[in-house]
Amino acid sequence: MKTKAVADRLAELVGSPDSRANVFAANCASRVVLDHVTSKWGVLILVALSGDTLRWGELRRSIEGISEKMLAQTLRTLEADGFVLRDAHPTIPPRVEYSLTELGHELAEQLLPLLRWVTANAEQIVRD
Amino acid sequence: MKTKAVADRLAELVGSPDSRANVFAANCASRVVLDHVTSKWGVLILVALSGDTLRWGELRRSIEGISEKMLAQTLRTLEADGFVLRDAHPTIPPRVEYSLTELGHELAEQLLPLLRWVTANAEQIVRD
Repeated sequence: MKTKAVADRLAELVGSPDSRANVFAANCASRVVLDHVTSKWGVLILVALSGDTLRWGELRRSIEGISEKMLAQTLRTLEADGFVLRDAHPTIPPRVEYSLTELGHELAEQLLPLLRWVTANAEQIVRD
Repeated sequence: MKTKAVADRLAELVGSPDSRANVFAANCASRVVLDHVTSKWGVLILVALSGDTLRWGELRRSIEGISEKMLAQTLRTLEADGFVLRDAHPTIPPRVEYSLTELGHELAEQLLPLLRWVTANAEQIVRD
């Protein structure tokens, strides 16, 4: 099959006649966003926040194995992308809460079926 | 909110009363699988193959920016997980084709909505 034909079919598959939004093309905006939302920690943080607003410590403890550094870094990226809202209350001690924006909720909706499928099939995949 | 309450709600969210399949728990099979399927290259390879069987060179050229090394490594991981079939024809020169297994097709079905959403929203996310 010709490369052009493959590229056209892939663009059609993800619904992007516009090559600026073609995730299979390098230097495309969607490639950057895909990178952010398909990091393991990104997926887990987004889904964790899809149910409720959580405080820093709650996030840290519910996502087992995440380091302080990775949690801070991933939250910053998700905040910059407009998926996560950071709400700092000027109390003593300071209380910082994280929640999803409308865009973040939309994204989490796309991630939940994937996470459910992985959860349901993981044992079989690792065993076989 | 208590950590236990958060953990229970998250397990419910992804549909895993069984803690062995709880993706929020460290050392869980689903965490390993999530790692494999949410690598940027993993997602792109799985979706590229969801339309058709492709040869090595076709994959390489359709996923712009992937190196030979990352393509080989990601294909090996996806093959070991049972998502991708490698079919080597003993011709001269040898012809190697990659396709999705039934499990791989199931997984690609979960990834396509995510990729379409990212494609549709990427420009806005990067711009804002």
